[in-house]
Formats: sequence, structure tokens, C-alpha cells
Amino acid sequence: MFDRVFVNAVDADGAPLNLAVRQGRFAAIGGERPESGGAEIVDLQGHLVLPGFVDGHIHLDKSFVGDRWRPHRPASSLRERLAVEKQQLASAAPIAERADALIRQAASFGTMAMRCHVDVDATTGLTHLHAVMQARERWRGVVDIELVAFPQAGVVSCPGTAQMLDAAVQEGAQVVGGIDPTTLDNDAEAQLDIVFGIAEKRGVKIDIHLHEPGQQGIDQLHRIAARTKAAGLNGRVAVSHAYALGDVAPDVVERIAAALADAGVSIMTNAPGDRAFPPVLALRAAGVQVFTGNDNIQDAWWPYGNGDMLQRAMLIGYRSGFYTDEELRIALNMATQAGAAVLGKTGYGVEVGNEASFVIVKAPNAAAAVAAVPAGRAIVRNGEFWGDGAATSRSLFNAD
Amino acid sequence: MFDRVFVNAVDADGAPLNLAVRQGRFAAIGGERPESGGAEIVDLQGHLVLPGFVDGHIHLDKSFVGDRWRPHRPASSLRERLAVEKQQLASAAPIAERADALIRQAASFGTMAMRCHVDVDATTGLTHLHAVMQARERWRGVVDIELVAFPQAGVVSCPGTAQMLDAAVQEGAQVVGGIDPTTLDNDAEAQLDIVFGIAEKRGVKIDIHLHEPGQQGIDQLHRIAARTKAAGLNGRVAVSHAYALGDVAPDVVERIAAALADAGVSIMTNAPGDRAFPPVLALRAAGVQVFTGNDNIQDAWWPYGNGDMLQRAMLIGYRSGFYTDEELRIALNMATQAGAAVLGKTGYGVEVGNEASFVIVKAPNAAAAVAAVPAGRAIVRNGEFWGDGAATSRSLFNAD
Repeated sequence: MFDRVFVNAVDADGAPLNLAVRQGRFAAIGGERPESGGAEIVDLQGHLVLPGFVDGHIHLDKSFVGDRWRPHRPASSLRERLAVEKQQLASAAPIAERADALIRQAASFGTMAMRCHVDVDATTGLTHLHAVMQARERWRGVVDIELVAFPQAGVVSCPGTAQMLDAAVQEGAQVVGGIDPTTLDNDAEAQLDIVFGIAEKRGVKIDIHLHEPGQQGIDQLHRIAARTKAAGLNGRVAVSHAYALGDVAPDVVERIAAALADAGVSIMTNAPGDRAFPPVLALRAAGVQVFTGNDNIQDAWWPYGNGDMLQRAMLIGYRSGFYTDEELRIALNMATQAGAAVLGKTGYGVEVGNEASFVIVKAPNAAAAVAAVPAGRAIVRNGEFWGDGAATSRSLFNAD
Repeated sequence: MFDRVFVNAVDADGAPLNLAVRQGRFAAIGGERPESGGAEIVDLQGHLVLPGFVDGHIHLDKSFVGDRWRPHRPASSLRERLAVEKQQLASAAPIAERADALIRQAASFGTMAMRCHVDVDATTGLTHLHAVMQARERWRGVVDIELVAFPQAGVVSCPGTAQMLDAAVQEGAQVVGGIDPTTLDNDAEAQLDIVFGIAEKRGVKIDIHLHEPGQQGIDQLHRIAARTKAAGLNGRVAVSHAYALGDVAPDVVERIAAALADAGVSIMTNAPGDRAFPPVLALRAAGVQVFTGNDNIQDAWWPYGNGDMLQRAMLIGYRSGFYTDEELRIALNMATQAGAAVLGKTGYGVEVGNEASFVIVKAPNAAAAVAAVPAGRAIVRNGEFWGDGAATSRSLFNAD
């Protein structure tokens, strides 16, 4: 009747959970241990089962993971940072290799889907995109990777970039990116015309990096919300970082949050360490979809990160002052369901009929997992233990 | 000539490191592999060697680690928080058991010394102190634990507390604590009279929790610096948290930093997630000893933390905007040497003649270890692999 039954686990609330698998899919899920028939029984020993993590914002073409350590070099402007990055990447291993190493590392922590921003401009052309697509191909069926054509240095101010973004989308990028329309391009309407133009013409989604501070950033968000609504792109536009939301007074947040919710614009924050960032609870209360991602991981931009979305959920909670179980579960939601919704991932989560893929964490419930970020994990994909440690994982959770 | 030689490691800078051990102590240390003679060779496979971590601020009597998860309950005042804590602890396992579990967990991450604040007041008496001393005894020679008699609810405003602090010190607490002299006791001079009085009379050190904000907190720091200097307690007084240092302008920080450095008052910060905290670089530049600790770990105060000082060093760097290798090493210094200096730990560190105790981390250098917080560790104590995973650790780093 079943191929395998995982018994004696707990769900996010710490309640008993048993998972029966047939042909790689969840066939039965519940608090009661099902009749196993002749199925193999795997005892999860009271540990937590979570859906696969979703990294809603990662730069696979930039990271030095899988390559040697490169000390961070300070830069005093974006142009200087881009020059440093170019120089550091010139001596690094090929993008496809580094991307592959980072995907592997993230997958070993339990990540099963990503939205990856890939540099696309007139100089770089589609080289980064092609390299990341190559790495993506190796991981097909294991980690779902959505690609964003990302104009790191601006759009209008970098001639040829608009054409390249369009070309990237035609080659398979599912999302067109933008960045700081006012401060980088000095012409917000012109950049947004291009980005929204490509999205409408090609039927792709939008994800705009927005570092613009204070009222300037809020004005930009209103502009993006209005365009999203006008274009009927509800649920298909995201703004990443949106630092401005952390800079302004609660009544200003309330007004823009209502506009973002109404237009269906989601917000991605990685909870940066040393600057203000969007108030997660206020945005969610207004109905805004808020998700998270690791952003830069050990690259020319900064040295932090390891690809672990459970650590990211902890940082979201830590920086947001989340203490209660409900708040900690919100941080986890941002790293799981909310990201899956933004990526449009179907058949996601621990539900009958879905692919039997999940993460086992040595924690008594989801709140405890977020607070303590246990290293003890095991990954199950299509009902089978997965990864370098598959044999070890299996022995940790003994089959009878 | 040697009992065991650990070869092929790297030091904090990533330079080659080989460690020869005789009778549990470092007998030779260097970039060249020493003549091993008949000694056993252990290949550390290019991984990083760090000195044991020092947790400069922990509350072993409060944590629920080793007990069941208790969801955080919000409280609107200190009094309410103390009531919630009392209620939650009433149903928890005995203090000595929980303290033992947390020490074990911290030790498994590589912590080898701690400064532990223990609640002491007229109601609690010395019960917490005795329980933590019992746990400390079990860990003697493995984790050095310095005890602070900590008046959680105030001194002057809680009759009998002053006597209990003195009694705690007579029973073996090496440090007398204080807390928010103005806001809790409404009489800064009276609390400081008692705390400094005990320190001078009994020859113990001082560590004062200071959450008082802005100029109020700065005034308190000036008061503490002046008293420290007057009493000749240079190097024997610490202020924990000192949030005020994160609230005020750089010129105000500069003045108080000079006073703290001159008086030899050190500052402990855990880099809280959602409020301003002391500017580490400015304080160090002025000559102030700055150290760190995990503070509360999964207790009635907050749900975060797991006892790992490498994660704490990452949080210090993350919150401080530390990106360069030099800055990341400063974060590590706060979790190692700086803490060891404050605790007065002798024979500490990877140096010939010292106890051959160290932490092996799967990282290419110290900066990378702080940035990524690798779970892959092994602990060596007196030249021997140590801990639950000792056999595994050993097999990871194969002996020839």
C-alpha cells in the first residue's frame, strides 16, 4: 500500500506527524501512525519535519563558495565595488562551477528552490546567464531555480542593457530585474518603462532591487505599485531590499503597505545586519507578501552567509525582535511558503499528493528550529534520504 | 620526543600550522612540520585551529536547554518578566541539570571558559549559586567557569540583596554584579557604594548590567569609570550591554571611551538584534577592552542562542558591519582573547607551554570561520580529541 512510512516526527507546532510515501509522493499524513502493511518504517525520533527551504534572493554568479577565500576589499562607491568585483571574479573559477558548488551547499541545508539574480548588461552580455543555466541544468528536479535578468549597474545609464534584458528573457529568464531607478538611472520612469515593458511584452515577472532610502524609496514603491496595478501584474512583481520601508514613520509605512498589498507587490528582505530594513509584521498585517533570501553569499559584496535558509530565518527574527513562537514561525514562513508563492512553485509543502520532499531538523518544533538553527538535518527527496550524508542520515533515523 | 603531532592545519591568517604535543601541552608550534620521531601523526587536512572560545556573559541558571521548549511569553515590564520567569522556572528541571546541559552544548561548540551571571537576591538566596557551582564542579578542568553574583531585580530596592551578594562572594563567586543603578534602584550612588564596597572588601571583580539608554547610561558609565579609577580596580571592572554607547553621538562615545580606557573598564556586548549597541571599533580604538558572550540562551527572556561563540562572533560582525578579514578577526578576538583577558585566564591560547586545548574548524582562516560559522568542528583537550564525537572527530582527521 505504501513504499515507506516515516513515523514519530513532529510538525511545526510540535504535534505528532507520520508521513506515508508511495511512488515518491505523500500518500498519507497524520498524527496517527498509519497501517504500514509491508512498507519500510523509518523512525524520525521526534524530530521536526519542514517543507524544503526557498531562497527567494540569491546571486549564484557572484559567490566564491567552492573557490578559495577572497578577503573583502572596501569600496567607496557602487562603481568602485563593481570594479573590485570584476577583478576578483576574473581570477575565480568558472561561474558554472561556483554556482554548482553553492547550489550543492544550499541543498545540503535543505533548500529546494531559489530565485537567482544573474548579472545581465551590455558588457557581460548573457555569459553569466548561460553559465548559471548550465549549473541549473545539473540540479533540475532537485533544486528549482528561477532566473532573474539583473541589470546590476543600471538600465538607462548603461546603453545596450535594455536589449540584453530582453534577450535574457527570450533565452529563458523568468523574471526581469531592475535597480534603483532614480539614484542609478536618474530617470525612474524611463527605467520602469523598460522593465515593465519587457514584463508585459514577454509575459515574465519583475523583481527590482531597491536600495533608495527614505521618502525617495517610498515614492519609488508607490510608482512601482501603481504600474503593477495598471499592468494587471498582481502577484508577479517583487521589490527586493526596499530599505526605505525601514527608514520612515509607521504612518508612511501604513500607506505604502496598503498600496503594495492592493497591487500585489511582494517585498523581499534578507534582514541586513547594520541598517534599517522593512518592518515585517506591519507589512504582513497590511496583506503584503513578505519573503526572504540569502542575497550575497561570500562574494565581493560581503563575506557573510553559507546558503542556509534556516540561519536566514533566524536572522530575520533576530533583527525583527521576534520572540514568540508565532513570530518565529513567520520568519520561517518567509523562508518557505512565502518564497514558494512568489516563485509560483506548485505542489509545494508537506501535503498528500505532493512530491515527498522535506527537511528533518533536530528540533522539537519550528520556533525552536528558527531560534537555535540546529546543524543536525537530513533531507528527504521523493521519499528517499538524499545528499552526501544520505547513508549517515539514514542511520541517524534508523529503518526497522 | 612528542606524544602526538597535529600536522597540516592553518592558523587564523590561513598560514600553515603544525602543533606538537607532549604530556598534554604544546611542545612545539610552527609552519614547518616538526620531526615526529615516534609520535603519532594526526593530519588536520588544512583546517583552521583556534583557541577555545570564551563566553564572557552567560546565564546558566535561566536556560531551558536540556529541558522542554517553552514558548516565549511577552511581558510589558521588568517586574512582569521576572514573574513570568519565576513561573516558567518553577516547572523546569533542576538548575544544576539544565546548567550541565548548556555547559555540555557550549563545550561541544568549542567553549572552554565562561563568565556566568547567577541570580542572587534575598528571595532566591544562594540557591541558584549553589546549583550552578554543582554543575561547574562536574566540568572542572574542561570548562573554566567564573561566577558573578547577579542582583537581577536591583540592589537597594530589594532589601537583603546586598547581604546576599556579599555572602555569594564569600561562598566563591569571583565577581560581584550590579544592574541599572539609576533606573532600577533610583539611587545610583547607593547601588555603586554597595557593589564597589563588596569588591574592595572581598578583593573580587565587578560586572554591571547596564541597559540604561542615552545620556543617562553615559552618565552611569562615567560614574563607574571614576569609581574604578579611584578604587584602583583597573582591569577588574566590566560593564555588560552598555546600550547607551550605541545611542549617542560619536563625540560623546569618544569622551566616555577615553574615560573607560583610562580606568580599565571593559565592555561586554552580545550585539543584540533589534536595538543599538556599543560601537566596537570606536571603543577598541580608544583602548577599551571589548568582549562578548551569548547572554540569554533559550530562556524566559528570549528564545535565541545555542551556546556557540562562533555564531556569536558572526552576529557581532554582522551587526557591526564588519566585512574585512581584519574586522572579522576582531569579532573573533572578542569571543576568545578579549574574554580570556577579562576572565584573567592564564595559559590561554595556542602557545608553547600552554595546555594543548584547541578547536578545529572546517574553514580556511579565521575570517572565513566567523563569516560562515561552519558546523564542522572538532575539539582537542590536553592533546586528545574530546567530546561525544571524539571518535568521529578522530576519524575525520585520520591518524596515520
